[in-house]
Amino acid sequence: MKPVTHAKVTKDITVADLIREYENCAFGAGRLARAVRIYKEMQADDVTNFFGLAGAMIPAGMRQVVADMIKQGDVDVLVTTGANLVHDMIEAFGGEHCKGQCTANDLELKKCKIDRIYDVYLEDQHFTTFEAKFDAIVADILNSYPKKLFTISDFLREIGSRIEDKTSILRTAVDSDVPVFCPAIADSSIGLQSWAFGYKRDLQVDTFKDIRQIMDICYKARRAGALFVGGGVPKNFIMQSMLLIPKGFDFAIQLSTDTPETGGLSGATLDEAKSWGKIGERAETVTVYSDATITLPILLAATL
Amino acid sequence: MKPVTHAKVTKDITVADLIREYENCAFGAGRLARAVRIYKEMQADDVTNFFGLAGAMIPAGMRQVVADMIKQGDVDVLVTTGANLVHDMIEAFGGEHCKGQCTANDLELKKCKIDRIYDVYLEDQHFTTFEAKFDAIVADILNSYPKKLFTISDFLREIGSRIEDKTSILRTAVDSDVPVFCPAIADSSIGLQSWAFGYKRDLQVDTFKDIRQIMDICYKARRAGALFVGGGVPKNFIMQSMLLIPKGFDFAIQLSTDTPETGGLSGATLDEAKSWGKIGERAETVTVYSDATITLPILLAATL
Amino acid sequence: MKPVTHAKVTKDITVADLIREYENCAFGAGRLARAVRIYKEMQADDVTNFFGLAGAMIPAGMRQVVADMIKQGDVDVLVTTGANLVHDMIEAFGGEHCKGQCTANDLELKKCKIDRIYDVYLEDQHFTTFEAKFDAIVADILNSYPKKLFTISDFLREIGSRIEDKTSILRTAVDSDVPVFCPAIADSSIGLQSWAFGYKRDLQVDTFKDIRQIMDICYKARRAGALFVGGGVPKNFIMQSMLLIPKGFDFAIQLSTDTPETGGLSGATLDEAKSWGKIGERAETVTVYSDATITLPILLAATL
Amino acid sequence: MKPVTHAKVTKDITVADLIREYENCAFGAGRLARAVRIYKEMQADDVTNFFGLAGAMIPAGMRQVVADMIKQGDVDVLVTTGANLVHDMIEAFGGEHCKGQCTANDLELKKCKIDRIYDVYLEDQHFTTFEAKFDAIVADILNSYPKKLFTISDFLREIGSRIEDKTSILRTAVDSDVPVFCPAIADSSIGLQSWAFGYKRDLQVDTFKDIRQIMDICYKARRAGALFVGGGVPKNFIMQSMLLIPKGFDFAIQLSTDTPETGGLSGATLDEAKSWGKIGERAETVTVYSDATITLPILLAATL
Repeated sequence: MKPVTHAKVTKDITVADLIREYENCAFGAGRLARAVRIYKEMQADDVTNFFGLAGAMIPAGMRQVVADMIKQGDVDVLVTTGANLVHDMIEAFGGEHCKGQCTANDLELKKCKIDRIYDVYLEDQHFTTFEAKFDAIVADILNSYPKKLFTISDFLREIGSRIEDKTSILRTAVDSDVPVFCPAIADSSIGLQSWAFGYKRDLQVDTFKDIRQIMDICYKARRAGALFVGGGVPKNFIMQSMLLIPKGFDFAIQLSTDTPETGGLSGATLDEAKSWGKIGERAETVTVYSDATITLPILLAATL
Repeated sequence: MKPVTHAKVTKDITVADLIREYENCAFGAGRLARAVRIYKEMQADDVTNFFGLAGAMIPAGMRQVVADMIKQGDVDVLVTTGANLVHDMIEAFGGEHCKGQCTANDLELKKCKIDRIYDVYLEDQHFTTFEAKFDAIVADILNSYPKKLFTISDFLREIGSRIEDKTSILRTAVDSDVPVFCPAIADSSIGLQSWAFGYKRDLQVDTFKDIRQIMDICYKARRAGALFVGGGVPKNFIMQSMLLIPKGFDFAIQLSTDTPETGGLSGATLDEAKSWGKIGERAETVTVYSDATITLPILLAATL
Repeated sequence: MKPVTHAKVTKDITVADLIREYENCAFGAGRLARAVRIYKEMQADDVTNFFGLAGAMIPAGMRQVVADMIKQGDVDVLVTTGANLVHDMIEAFGGEHCKGQCTANDLELKKCKIDRIYDVYLEDQHFTTFEAKFDAIVADILNSYPKKLFTISDFLREIGSRIEDKTSILRTAVDSDVPVFCPAIADSSIGLQSWAFGYKRDLQVDTFKDIRQIMDICYKARRAGALFVGGGVPKNFIMQSMLLIPKGFDFAIQLSTDTPETGGLSGATLDEAKSWGKIGERAETVTVYSDATITLPILLAATL
Repeated sequence: MKPVTHAKVTKDITVADLIREYENCAFGAGRLARAVRIYKEMQADDVTNFFGLAGAMIPAGMRQVVADMIKQGDVDVLVTTGANLVHDMIEAFGGEHCKGQCTANDLELKKCKIDRIYDVYLEDQHFTTFEAKFDAIVADILNSYPKKLFTISDFLREIGSRIEDKTSILRTAVDSDVPVFCPAIADSSIGLQSWAFGYKRDLQVDTFKDIRQIMDICYKARRAGALFVGGGVPKNFIMQSMLLIPKGFDFAIQLSTDTPETGGLSGATLDEAKSWGKIGERAETVTVYSDATITLPILLAATL
């Protein structure tokens, strides 16, 4: 048995050194240090890494961190929510999220045409801009491919390549040749807009055909790693992609506040996934039960 | 100010009477009583009710309760996850979920070909049966409509009408003329099977086209209510459907263990949705922060 | 393996029958049914039952339920917080808790001299009444026993016997000869008042001497059961009382929303307590992760 | 409105710089940055700081961080649990905590005489050593003060001054002239030992008399700050000490995973405390909902 040694912090300690101090701590600190250790192993060349990004991470200020992770090659496949993509585009199109109060009076916010996301405010007008610019992009895509039946990831790649803002996550993914999957894309303002748009033009996006591509990536992976921020569809979609592959994931990190006791998939332990074969028997795994806006930048900072 | 009065229980007290005892309690008990009160108002003829069903409610034993809610007319629109539909079909096709241990050794379960969902066990063989029967149903659908581009809800209605088990949620929804939306349908074994199947036959399911139908329902609703079990895509998809409708939901009930402090949509307060206009300014709303496998049957029992 | 069967509710279903429906459900519903089963076994004559009551259960409307549990002999030892005792006395002395809003403006409440406990309001004036009546009781105690060094439980028994309201939990405990332990009694308005009072009179209450009594009860118990509502000091104090007794608790039920992932004792699993020997190796235990204001009355109703 | 700007991390970024990146983030990251800002203000000379330390922070590896906070003058009053003091002394007396598995088989641990605290293991033998050394210290105290009626904080100061290990939290507090309050001291192995010891010698520790001292400190404070790690008795005891002081706390930081929705005091918002007057109307407050083993060292590192 290895003794717990107590974390010691000093003036100007780096994040990487802080994590070294956490190495022999327990609870969340010990788990975060273990996540860093696993993440470093996942950076090996022969590991194909899947990043499941749920939550409202863009409004919270995590856009740069996610983009940097993609840019430096830590991500081979991104699976995310429509919301994260929309908020990424809202900023790409000149909009901004603002710091607000989680205790705000929501009726007064409504009068001011401000939408609240916990302690973030977003002005309605940025959605109007988003809609106009998004429509123009989709129109351009349809002009280029008038009769194409898109997969969701193809459609997103086409959109991403037309986003001018190079700090955008979607644009960065396209530039880095990282496929972006978003099975629930209809469940977002992209869905609403595609509907509004659909009256005029013949946009066809298939809901199932992406599965072939993600499963091909799984089959070809020599070793595979998964990083989950939150649960939801991104976690489940990555997990199920490995369901039919004999060996399952070799590495898995979960940064989440969801706990297993509710029985839902979001909070399910990574061990549970081993019974299904989604995660390999000898995989190295860890769940850090803590706010990912705190732990995700630390994970990146400690592994740069 | 109304005083808290203390709940008094007696031998053979009914669930409906228990809820009357909770009426003047606070915390979860008071909230559950309020949910019952709102649910009763939602049962009025002129209210169109949306039911967002996330979580793994079928494996947990809630299949009958959900089907009964549909059957008795409490549900006008069902939005759920692929997982809930798959587990519903697994039982419809003769499979069963079993009671297990959440502390099980997952590697041993794997050897026994048992998949774990918290404290529920599911034998792999039931997936094999599911796949075969599901393939036959899809083949029959494609024979009937060889070149059809399906919406997800159309596809689900075709499946549901071919399920023989009348206790099935999906079959019950079809029989009751309740549309079933499942934006993330690809994120389930339906997705995996449709992919496997897709090699042979030309199944085409559009990812966006359902939005028109659900928004039409929203537009036509005189008054609208929403019941959310858990969060995830079902919650967000129902909420966003009301985003462009001026008045928003008139009633909303949330049965969930997710809390707002993480910033995610699943745990977001119903007040937050008022800033967006998804929920009306004067709507009656309540969140019961408690395990829905306990509270959902109580909600139904107290309003029969 | 035992199959999950789906809960079926009917009009006028009793709470006891609802629990029978939960018997073969999983997640929280299954756990609650198991808690009922264990609680019934704990009602056997040879089981000594410890009830650890944390949380703010009196303000929430659980006073009658707790008193009834004591009255009908389900509780042999009560361990609770100063807060629960103070709120019990506030009502015994004519005060009342009122239903409020958890989203209230706390600065305005302060101006109105209203103290908030989540969604419960309590007027400052009820504390003033409490202080006067409590002082009179302590004065009377000191007149009766001018130089006595009290244990905390002795002191509480003397207080309880002077409370006129027979619906009081403390009075009910005294009437039922159930000792009440409150290790952190100083951490409450009883503490504040005893201090204010202490200037004038010589109240002496020992902090350690109760341990002998509770350990004697543990030693003498043929079989022992523990019911925990929330965690905190009541849970730990009951657990540690069994630490030196070879066989540990035979039964343990935990109704709580605290989960193990934080590492704290409040959310610690009952299995963890087996490593310490606080709970016996073959004990029957269950944790119901759900709001206790919902589950505690159900537990009582189903076992009357 | 201030825009959210996205956190950017670089190789070798310091913790202090990371927090600067979090300044304009939202959710947990923004809250942690705000906690750092408030903590810096609390370090002003005229602020009297109360530190409420619950949880099992010593087993988790936070002993050095807490001791350093005391040593550098950030703490004027420490309120903690018996458990934290016992685990501090176990290490002071040569014992150690070890890293373990939260999924361990607790019956096997019991056979190996290992006690589990989530993912920390502690050998029974270290309790035996603790008992012997603690008994010797108490014997020495009673020799020095044969008939003294101790307050709990006096008793702890006497113990602390007899601990040789200068890295001990309790010893550090004594050396730094910081009073240590522990209202629930009986609820720990100190309680069990004092009981065992009490048969032979006449140890008298009063449960109420500390309140005078802590309230004196509150009265004399020009400005007052509170840092809470977890909730429980330490939080409530600090809060109630300010109940009778007109102005309440000027600063309050809460590092916790407890949320308000359960209605308990541990998760209560700091705003709620304003209705009671425990926290001042204009106080600067923040709650960081995240594992404190991660956030507490960061708080210290960023303010050195």
